[in-house]
Amino acid sequence: VNAPDNLRHRVAAGEIAVRLTLQYDGSGFAGWQLQPRERTVQGELESALARLTDRPARVAAAGRTDRGVHAAGQVVSAAVPAKWQPAELQRALNAVLPSDIWVVDAGEADAAFHARFSAVARGYVYRVATTPAARSPFLRRWCWPLGRPLELAALDALAGELLGEHSFRAFAKAGQPERGERCTVHRSSWRAWGRRGVEYIIVANRFLHHMVRYLVGTMVAIALGQRGDGDLKALLAGGTPLETSPPAPPAGLFLARVYYPDDSIDEDTADAILP
Amino acid sequence: VNAPDNLRHRVAAGEIAVRLTLQYDGSGFAGWQLQPRERTVQGELESALARLTDRPARVAAAGRTDRGVHAAGQVVSAAVPAKWQPAELQRALNAVLPSDIWVVDAGEADAAFHARFSAVARGYVYRVATTPAARSPFLRRWCWPLGRPLELAALDALAGELLGEHSFRAFAKAGQPERGERCTVHRSSWRAWGRRGVEYIIVANRFLHHMVRYLVGTMVAIALGQRGDGDLKALLAGGTPLETSPPAPPAGLFLARVYYPDDSIDEDTADAILP
Repeated sequence: VNAPDNLRHRVAAGEIAVRLTLQYDGSGFAGWQLQPRERTVQGELESALARLTDRPARVAAAGRTDRGVHAAGQVVSAAVPAKWQPAELQRALNAVLPSDIWVVDAGEADAAFHARFSAVARGYVYRVATTPAARSPFLRRWCWPLGRPLELAALDALAGELLGEHSFRAFAKAGQPERGERCTVHRSSWRAWGRRGVEYIIVANRFLHHMVRYLVGTMVAIALGQRGDGDLKALLAGGTPLETSPPAPPAGLFLARVYYPDDSIDEDTADAILP
Repeated sequence: VNAPDNLRHRVAAGEIAVRLTLQYDGSGFAGWQLQPRERTVQGELESALARLTDRPARVAAAGRTDRGVHAAGQVVSAAVPAKWQPAELQRALNAVLPSDIWVVDAGEADAAFHARFSAVARGYVYRVATTPAARSPFLRRWCWPLGRPLELAALDALAGELLGEHSFRAFAKAGQPERGERCTVHRSSWRAWGRRGVEYIIVANRFLHHMVRYLVGTMVAIALGQRGDGDLKALLAGGTPLETSPPAPPAGLFLARVYYPDDSIDEDTADAILP
């Protein structure tokens, strides 16, 4: 699937389109998107590219992660001078980028490829530390440091209710764009996160703003007995005065994987990528 | 075993002695020890204690970790006003300390207890990431991001040569204090660190400056075939013109555990503590 003509990168003569896969620790960033006077991933990446190619650079990402959210498999597209072959570009970028961003992979892409508009699905992982050691500095940076036990089977049963196509209006930050609220969830499950806690995996064709964090916040509140078992289903069905629980903290959320038309969604979203 | 009289804390009337167990991410500190104009763990902890108890505070640590070195089980002793019961002190400290320091445990100690002088052994863990993903921001913060395979059996055979009492003069930074160079190694072994790499565990009665990092640097160089298999033994025996390999980077090193007279050294140093 190619990006619509008006949304393609302009790949000029003497340029090639590249596709980069990035990991970043979101702790030190005000999110992906370029903002004045804020340290953002896009800002750091565009600065590094501009420095290497000696011209202004503009990149597009598959998912515009929020402040504090991490990426294990963000995909980025850009047009660069053809003399920068992807493998060389990857090495050079990793040499100049700060240590909280890492280019995992780089390859030449079709000129019609656009990291965001060509994507057909995205996978997120959300980690909750349930051990008493949740507040350890070696855990809390990249998780929700809950520090209380959660019943995995109960969470996983809730997650199963989200599979398929639904309106996720109840699980979106106010002020959504007008693209509609329906999302198709291909995968939604909880599993053990080593000895440290539990993790939620969701793959869907699209996501509303803060949707994963609202879903996790609500599922965890139900699992802790703070609200009724039926609330998730009621919120999903709509027409209820119920509201979601507060969104789970951003530090637990990872954009794990972006899927393009040739990718199989059956593959494991998290295993190959997250440590 | 009690600390010698002249090295004890002064526990005044109306005070109790406390023993704290700390974890910290060494990345953001110029080491443990108080230094002017540098962010140190001791500085942060003493500031937090002074703020809570409204008087100047002085603490002593079992191991004065270097810049960039982490702790999973650092032990600290101090005298505090008796109205601060240990559990309350732990909660209050965790509320005011920055998120890269965490008080795991707190208890009242005998007035003769001194975190450093009462200790009979210390255990360190050193982690080396050997996967191609070693440079991931989710790995490199707390490891040596080597990114090349290492043969575990070869490393473990080398580690076994260090058991027992030896002079470790060859594995110490120049300018050691005059307390001698002999150390007794109770445990020295390598094992798998999940899918991410390998980790070295060493427990000894004492350590010279940078000793673990020189040992790891030299063992890894041998395992990579960069120097001879016999070099470790030759360096340990002394009287050789050989020198150690460069010290392994500080980010891989964790002070994992401190042992006092009642503790068994057979227990696993790392499992219970490190994520």
